[in-house]
Amino acid sequence: MKVSELAAQTGASIPTIKYYLREGLLMPGRATSATGATYGQEHVRRIRIVKALTDVAGLPIQRIKTVLELIDNPGQDLFDTLGRALAALPPYPADNDNAPADYPLARAALQLLGQAYHPDSVAVAQLERALHAVADAGLPMTEERLRTYADCLMTMAKLDVGRMPQNPPSAAVEYAVLGTALYEPVILAMRRLAHEDLAERLLTNQTDNTDNQP
Amino acid sequence: MKVSELAAQTGASIPTIKYYLREGLLMPGRATSATGATYGQEHVRRIRIVKALTDVAGLPIQRIKTVLELIDNPGQDLFDTLGRALAALPPYPADNDNAPADYPLARAALQLLGQAYHPDSVAVAQLERALHAVADAGLPMTEERLRTYADCLMTMAKLDVGRMPQNPPSAAVEYAVLGTALYEPVILAMRRLAHEDLAERLLTNQTDNTDNQP
Repeated sequence: MKVSELAAQTGASIPTIKYYLREGLLMPGRATSATGATYGQEHVRRIRIVKALTDVAGLPIQRIKTVLELIDNPGQDLFDTLGRALAALPPYPADNDNAPADYPLARAALQLLGQAYHPDSVAVAQLERALHAVADAGLPMTEERLRTYADCLMTMAKLDVGRMPQNPPSAAVEYAVLGTALYEPVILAMRRLAHEDLAERLLTNQTDNTDNQP
Repeated sequence: MKVSELAAQTGASIPTIKYYLREGLLMPGRATSATGATYGQEHVRRIRIVKALTDVAGLPIQRIKTVLELIDNPGQDLFDTLGRALAALPPYPADNDNAPADYPLARAALQLLGQAYHPDSVAVAQLERALHAVADAGLPMTEERLRTYADCLMTMAKLDVGRMPQNPPSAAVEYAVLGTALYEPVILAMRRLAHEDLAERLLTNQTDNTDNQP
């Protein structure tokens, strides 16, 4: 297809597509003349990924290149590749040359839940920071809340991981990156709407025949 | 207590406390002399809230003032007050003077789930944007995923709302704002760690005696 068709199919403008080509975020098309080129479904797919990572997830170009490199060359160890691809997504750890080798709050939480504790995982550092913040604000994580959240999130994660394509490995990397970056806002919005729904029933004088007290 | 003690108890530096006082984010202490003042537990509590909203949630000063005003004067309609306080938290809707009066993807999702659809709720606009992004990226929400996520998030939300103090109403506003702003990063980190845990069992050759296929 022509670049104009590529733009129509992806919703990316032609200047945006040219920018992606210049930055190496999109592979060149097949040359049809000195100045023309033709594009295929792999270009449509790539533009969708790049658009999602820039517009929605807000990744800087360099991080997008890291992700694309891992999609194009997933290597032998898919678990390791997924970890490196997901580490390219925000939130990024604070610049800190002497990052702690241990994350006590996250370690204790994962231990209680019977989940593996890998101090080199970016998500462990994220959890540590987040648990610190709730404790500092005087709303510390309780065991009840930790267990309830973990059960629910594990159920959701089983669906996500169960639906992950494993072949080719590049499809797994794409799925994991987009599923993480793009579904996080969905989940946060749905959580706020669940709160609204319950608070409305609790606080306004509607007929209430559901169990909204745990 | 003296300002130095206030700093020690909250982890906020004295210049930060003075900045909060100047900006009206912290109520003045009780004057003990022409230049000295004494502070109490209400100051500790207020500093914790302001610190959480600035440092963790990243709210601009003006939005923090909105939240504090609603904490101090929650009014008669607590449900309405909670909605206005939570609307002060990010993500903020895109600047768009002619915002749509309808959010078709969010409306369809909420209808399927039997939840109320209030097009004036900020969370509905968030859900619409997030569902649009996943569809654009070629990973559209399925009914299976929507129902699984909603069930789990509703279970988590019941715990949250069930633990919300209702008296005084200002405590409910504080709890809802901090619980939303500070627990969202906890949930996202825990979700990523659940994915890691499942992917590790699925992709590395560990003994696997759990059901990680839905």
